[in-house]
Amino acid sequence: MTVSPFDHPFLSGLLADAETARQFSAEAEIAAMLAFERALAEAEAGEGVIGSVAAAAIVAAAASFEPDVTALNAAVARDGVVVPEFVRQLRLAVGAPHGDKVHFGATSQDVIDSALVLRLKPVVERLDALLAGAAARLAAVERQFGDRPLIGRTRMQAAIGITVADRVSSWRAPLERHRVRLAATRAELLVVQFGGAAGTLEKLGGKAAAVRRALAQKLGLGDAPQWHSQRDRLAEFAGLLSLISGSLGKFGQDVALMAQDGSEIALGGGGRSSAMPHKQNPVAAEVLVALARFNATQLSGMHHALVHEQERSGAAWTLEWLLLPQMAAAAAASLGHAAALAGQIESMGARPGN
Amino acid sequence: MTVSPFDHPFLSGLLADAETARQFSAEAEIAAMLAFERALAEAEAGEGVIGSVAAAAIVAAAASFEPDVTALNAAVARDGVVVPEFVRQLRLAVGAPHGDKVHFGATSQDVIDSALVLRLKPVVERLDALLAGAAARLAAVERQFGDRPLIGRTRMQAAIGITVADRVSSWRAPLERHRVRLAATRAELLVVQFGGAAGTLEKLGGKAAAVRRALAQKLGLGDAPQWHSQRDRLAEFAGLLSLISGSLGKFGQDVALMAQDGSEIALGGGGRSSAMPHKQNPVAAEVLVALARFNATQLSGMHHALVHEQERSGAAWTLEWLLLPQMAAAAAASLGHAAALAGQIESMGARPGN
Amino acid sequence: MTVSPFDHPFLSGLLADAETARQFSAEAEIAAMLAFERALAEAEAGEGVIGSVAAAAIVAAAASFEPDVTALNAAVARDGVVVPEFVRQLRLAVGAPHGDKVHFGATSQDVIDSALVLRLKPVVERLDALLAGAAARLAAVERQFGDRPLIGRTRMQAAIGITVADRVSSWRAPLERHRVRLAATRAELLVVQFGGAAGTLEKLGGKAAAVRRALAQKLGLGDAPQWHSQRDRLAEFAGLLSLISGSLGKFGQDVALMAQDGSEIALGGGGRSSAMPHKQNPVAAEVLVALARFNATQLSGMHHALVHEQERSGAAWTLEWLLLPQMAAAAAASLGHAAALAGQIESMGARPGN
Amino acid sequence: MTVSPFDHPFLSGLLADAETARQFSAEAEIAAMLAFERALAEAEAGEGVIGSVAAAAIVAAAASFEPDVTALNAAVARDGVVVPEFVRQLRLAVGAPHGDKVHFGATSQDVIDSALVLRLKPVVERLDALLAGAAARLAAVERQFGDRPLIGRTRMQAAIGITVADRVSSWRAPLERHRVRLAATRAELLVVQFGGAAGTLEKLGGKAAAVRRALAQKLGLGDAPQWHSQRDRLAEFAGLLSLISGSLGKFGQDVALMAQDGSEIALGGGGRSSAMPHKQNPVAAEVLVALARFNATQLSGMHHALVHEQERSGAAWTLEWLLLPQMAAAAAASLGHAAALAGQIESMGARPGN
Repeated sequence: MTVSPFDHPFLSGLLADAETARQFSAEAEIAAMLAFERALAEAEAGEGVIGSVAAAAIVAAAASFEPDVTALNAAVARDGVVVPEFVRQLRLAVGAPHGDKVHFGATSQDVIDSALVLRLKPVVERLDALLAGAAARLAAVERQFGDRPLIGRTRMQAAIGITVADRVSSWRAPLERHRVRLAATRAELLVVQFGGAAGTLEKLGGKAAAVRRALAQKLGLGDAPQWHSQRDRLAEFAGLLSLISGSLGKFGQDVALMAQDGSEIALGGGGRSSAMPHKQNPVAAEVLVALARFNATQLSGMHHALVHEQERSGAAWTLEWLLLPQMAAAAAASLGHAAALAGQIESMGARPGN
Repeated sequence: MTVSPFDHPFLSGLLADAETARQFSAEAEIAAMLAFERALAEAEAGEGVIGSVAAAAIVAAAASFEPDVTALNAAVARDGVVVPEFVRQLRLAVGAPHGDKVHFGATSQDVIDSALVLRLKPVVERLDALLAGAAARLAAVERQFGDRPLIGRTRMQAAIGITVADRVSSWRAPLERHRVRLAATRAELLVVQFGGAAGTLEKLGGKAAAVRRALAQKLGLGDAPQWHSQRDRLAEFAGLLSLISGSLGKFGQDVALMAQDGSEIALGGGGRSSAMPHKQNPVAAEVLVALARFNATQLSGMHHALVHEQERSGAAWTLEWLLLPQMAAAAAASLGHAAALAGQIESMGARPGN
Repeated sequence: MTVSPFDHPFLSGLLADAETARQFSAEAEIAAMLAFERALAEAEAGEGVIGSVAAAAIVAAAASFEPDVTALNAAVARDGVVVPEFVRQLRLAVGAPHGDKVHFGATSQDVIDSALVLRLKPVVERLDALLAGAAARLAAVERQFGDRPLIGRTRMQAAIGITVADRVSSWRAPLERHRVRLAATRAELLVVQFGGAAGTLEKLGGKAAAVRRALAQKLGLGDAPQWHSQRDRLAEFAGLLSLISGSLGKFGQDVALMAQDGSEIALGGGGRSSAMPHKQNPVAAEVLVALARFNATQLSGMHHALVHEQERSGAAWTLEWLLLPQMAAAAAASLGHAAALAGQIESMGARPGN
Repeated sequence: MTVSPFDHPFLSGLLADAETARQFSAEAEIAAMLAFERALAEAEAGEGVIGSVAAAAIVAAAASFEPDVTALNAAVARDGVVVPEFVRQLRLAVGAPHGDKVHFGATSQDVIDSALVLRLKPVVERLDALLAGAAARLAAVERQFGDRPLIGRTRMQAAIGITVADRVSSWRAPLERHRVRLAATRAELLVVQFGGAAGTLEKLGGKAAAVRRALAQKLGLGDAPQWHSQRDRLAEFAGLLSLISGSLGKFGQDVALMAQDGSEIALGGGGRSSAMPHKQNPVAAEVLVALARFNATQLSGMHHALVHEQERSGAAWTLEWLLLPQMAAAAAASLGHAAALAGQIESMGARPGN
């Protein structure tokens, strides 16, 4: 079943970045949830909350645990979240007498949110690498054709002469700002979520802070007070995803406009038409516009999800699941298309001697 | 790969209506594209545009044709649309001398848009059945508990006494209006798209209108002038999808509010918590709110896609693909949850004698 | 104070239709609220709910009543809605012994929603006239230049030759469908809201239905059961407003694209540039795109407002106030710009003999 | 005319922060545009681009210049932007022989965007002060009632006991992060826009950088290369505005939920009802939710405006005008309501001894 083009057998090639999409697969989520439960057991054993034999049993069982995904799906339909059934299965795999130490003191949201952040970490790294790559490709275009004249256009009318470098730098400069933004947001975004049933870690008593710190450290995440009902970090990150795809949408729109009559830009490798074999469609440019508008659309929902009532909103939380993964996939896909499109520019501006 | 919860191995149980989601699978899309090419060949043969032997060869080949999906995916990444490669493969399957009569006079958008409408037809039927079902369940609640007193609440404050029927009818009445809207929009929405390279069916000469009429008839769709750059029908349908999920979001919100202390409503079959075994979470109610906000979010993008430039906008068209299938899946899923939730109402309002 | 460009001393000329904007002025709202209270008194007197002397006193006082707007503003800041203070002032104006019969059995939402619908009635009429006018202008363009050749463009690339009529009809046809939609939605949209404190008209007893029917009739609106928490009519109307501006956004985008090099279209009366006196900017075309995207943005919020909890949601209701008036003003303004832009087309397509 | 509630004679009390709204008045915009033209003349005189006598004449005339606003409005309807007519009037006021030195080398977007940033500076300061104020009020609530027990609620169901401090800190902590974000974004956001006709400052030759630096310094803004077609700074700021109102929406939603039966919170000063004099409506709480959803809605459009084609997009730019001022007004208004609402909390959590 493939309702979303991001998961589609023959559309995902156009719309997804495989490396980013992989982080949002069920396999990656299960692996991240297991990493959480393993690290939690170890952190709790380290602080004497559970026994070290129990922790070892949990770590050992988790290493080979493969959940019954059909049962997970059925349980999500009832529970609204996969964790109760996931923990039930994992406890069974650990078996008596240590099974009941799995997930001790934690709640569903701790697992789901921390497992999300764990996967956002490689996503952030991937985005940074893609940003660097796209910016480098644009810098190469600037070096190669930057001095050539181009007609500056304002309000879609010819204005005055500029250079190719003037326009290309308007595509590249935002990407460099986005890298700065990404670096600035990393430390704030990539933090553990651990609060227990209602945020107070009531089962851990005086050891709560130490366990959380150890848990964060084992997961390679920052430590922070629970944020289960404070979703500003995720909404801010979604904003950055949309800033990235939005800036690239401008690049795509500009290229599509220049490609109209072909005198200002020459592109290699355009798409075919089923009706007109002679046409070369600027597909990557158009997809950049589509993905920019897609993320601009989704972002609104991520901000509605800030209205996250009380200690946990099932409604606002589920809404995030429907939006954020696709936004990340769209941002990464648009960076891939942008790099490819920059690489397709065989000429830009007026050719010398013309 | 499962970026979208609608396609997810263990989230789709919560968020998708299997019957609706199936219409947006690659298999269903391929089947619909084949139906289009087959009907086109027959319609063109009927009007003498291509030979009847050619048409028979196309119909025969299409009956057993199975595209190379990996090649389709690679081609979409280049062409931005599956049709050029799909037609190339199908022509190969038909073989000489008739292969080049496949897709005669048509363009990619004819295939994609008509194949979409072909699948929206069962979606519309499914939605109508689900609307009827959800309304019937709510009517049953009204019959069973309608006379009981309930505290009317305005601005989230207790106001004056009303009856259960007063509130339930505010959930049910919109569903009945949505059925009327769905019926009214059917004839306008479920029409063929057939225009050729730029909308003029230039290869069909004087037979264009007759072929289009025959094509529509064979596909079980209405006949209409090409609408490839006029997307108001799809945006309007998206609006109806969001009206449906939005009205159900109110139902879900009301139930979640009533379920807070449990004195006004008793629900069977709530979701489990991983931290608190005693809790019964009103999962279906929350999911209704999440899906309402999801569709409210997506709808904006469908209206941006109305700015569909010239004879075909790759950007605006791709944007629709990213939005409409998930909106339909969300609307259908929310109707399923609504019917289930209505069925879970074991008591509502003050019990007699209390 | 002029936060919104629709109300701005020097931007409203660009963005507002004065006739539509007037319906959303404080004066128009006050007049409509007075019309409601007057009609209510008469309807209630007609059914014997209040005395006919009291009704006459209310009608007389309302005829010359001018509220203290500063006090209204202060009261809204506390009450969240203008009606309590408005009714307090009006009762004072009527004076003893009939003042307390003002607003009898009604609630704030009855006044606000019915007063909105009362003003949507002329807005609907205005939109229909503007739609007819814009369509007529486009039909004139089609008659004048329709046979001329134009290069059809798909995916922003030259495709094959079409005619001017082919493209102009893609601008005009949606407007005609919007007129049909507007006509279809009128009867459903233009209905009275009257429910009392929590929708049950509990103070009117057995006369409730008769009073509501008479009230509707006196206001020139349709009769319907209270819909205070069922906002689908307003969300659907908002969708139509956005369909209108969206279709015109396509027209604007197409004209802006054609105006790029000026060979396909000649426009009179473009905008000036402060830096380049020679430029003629296609301002109306751009504004059409801006207004299309503005309404596509707002529409999302109107659908979020469908999640209108219990018998009255202050939050969802206030959200509508922030969105719907501007959407109507934007739709009307875009129709005005579209008609003007169509009138500016001095030539389109290849000139004969060229 | 008052289409927008932010400008409305009797709604603005509820929805606008007067100090922020003032920055978006026509008067403030004119003052900021004059400041730009004055500083530009001085900066250009300082670098010898125009004569110092001319600059003195411009500064003198600007000091008492009052534009013909009716003419401005008419001109905007034609030009799409106020600057051509504004400069024409200002040149006339300066008179021969220096009038033509007004606006030398600049373009409309330089004036509009720099005048916007000039006014965002006090807006940023206002927001920071309001954030500090709201956080302080919440800290006071925490000090006063923090130790009292409260029932933690997850998925709208009673979960386990927490303290008042646990919940209040979930309202306060995001505000403190928003202050950090605001501080971090200041330097990047508050920069001059100066690029001339198409971004190259072609009329200033080798003095371009020096003039821009001096202009920025005189305006009290940072210096930066022109960013006329790179709108990420504004979109990012819009995101922060929506993060602010969104976090406060959670506060509002929580208070409205607690106020339902009144046992968990006691509020002073609620709103009146026209039908039920005994009711105390939690108006500020509801308005916080409405404003959160309003800004979440608008933000989407600001991100669509990132697709800002070529050297200047009239469409994307106009779209920003329609969105950003209201977003700023909404964020400021919600901070005001939040502080007021925190101040209304007379009791929270279970009272000692109960």
